[in-house]
Amino acid sequence: MTVRWALEEVGQSYDVRLVSFQSMKEPEHRALHPFGQIPTYEEGELVLFESGAIVLHIAENHAGLLPDDANARAGAIMWMFAALSTVEPPIVQREFSHYLERDKPWHNERLPMLENLIRSRLEDLSHRLGGSDWLNGSFSAGDLLMVQVLRRLKGTDLLGEFPALSAYVARGEARSAFKRAFDAQLAVFAGTQGHRGEEGA
Amino acid sequence: MTVRWALEEVGQSYDVRLVSFQSMKEPEHRALHPFGQIPTYEEGELVLFESGAIVLHIAENHAGLLPDDANARAGAIMWMFAALSTVEPPIVQREFSHYLERDKPWHNERLPMLENLIRSRLEDLSHRLGGSDWLNGSFSAGDLLMVQVLRRLKGTDLLGEFPALSAYVARGEARSAFKRAFDAQLAVFAGTQGHRGEEGA
Repeated sequence: MTVRWALEEVGQSYDVRLVSFQSMKEPEHRALHPFGQIPTYEEGELVLFESGAIVLHIAENHAGLLPDDANARAGAIMWMFAALSTVEPPIVQREFSHYLERDKPWHNERLPMLENLIRSRLEDLSHRLGGSDWLNGSFSAGDLLMVQVLRRLKGTDLLGEFPALSAYVARGEARSAFKRAFDAQLAVFAGTQGHRGEEGA
Repeated sequence: MTVRWALEEVGQSYDVRLVSFQSMKEPEHRALHPFGQIPTYEEGELVLFESGAIVLHIAENHAGLLPDDANARAGAIMWMFAALSTVEPPIVQREFSHYLERDKPWHNERLPMLENLIRSRLEDLSHRLGGSDWLNGSFSAGDLLMVQVLRRLKGTDLLGEFPALSAYVARGEARSAFKRAFDAQLAVFAGTQGHRGEEGA
């Protein structure tokens, strides 16, 4: 979804190749992605993995996701790293805990600890965003990744505690490129139901 | 240390400003780093946080950390994101667990789980590195970040289980730029002992 959204923002067409959970761990896919995950991205001879790297590659080669001014551009890239290195990890930790440890005796004691760590990040982020529409001037690849990271919280009550961030996510989702990507993504899942298909781009 | 090493690789001089643990959380520092962490980087009007973003900014503006060929350059940046988004988070999780949960009754059961997650990443990384010196051709900003991430494991036995990765880290540490950065960093800590000083660049 992240890569799709980026491609829709810059108006580039793309083909999608689905990768099953099983084939993700097989040598053919690991040749593209050494950690056996998705997404991967292929463009001519170039093969990339890591959503952040793929989005940055798209943003550097097409107008629409990075500002022209050098300092503003560095700031947008900074928010890409902040989304993936600072805001996402505690959110992923909570997901892991939910899926792998929710039957463990310690889960009820650990969950509030994990959620407080997420809250601390959200509070700082909300404070920095303030009354602005986007993190660094105009909408950029930094916002695209940050909105995608925050959307991982949708099954929880955490995002709702920060109205400015809920509104920020809603602004991202209201973009026509997001809607096109979301509809296309939904169509894939509707079409592959029963296959447990996942998407690689 | 990460930012120092990058600056030493490209031969740029720099001044260091120390930030205490206490002042990291105060408004003046948060104006530079909304999450109240280090490092931050100032260059004229530009203020950056996030090690990855700072290293990429340095690498884009000075020769020595990114290849000229466009695809090789995208590959090096991909490894920067892989270091920070895929390899580092489980290592940080283990550190958190060690500092915050080692007296908890569940720590002994969770630790092997966390270490197996790290092992899984190291195994994939070692497999991809194979017999190469560096991850993507010549030494790049991707290697710089990956070596720094792997060095976080030095207090554990995990790195030693993967001889190819131990040798990879040793190659990084043998670079003259690394040594200059390490010595300069050590001198700061020697000079501020008792202040619990941390470094911001």
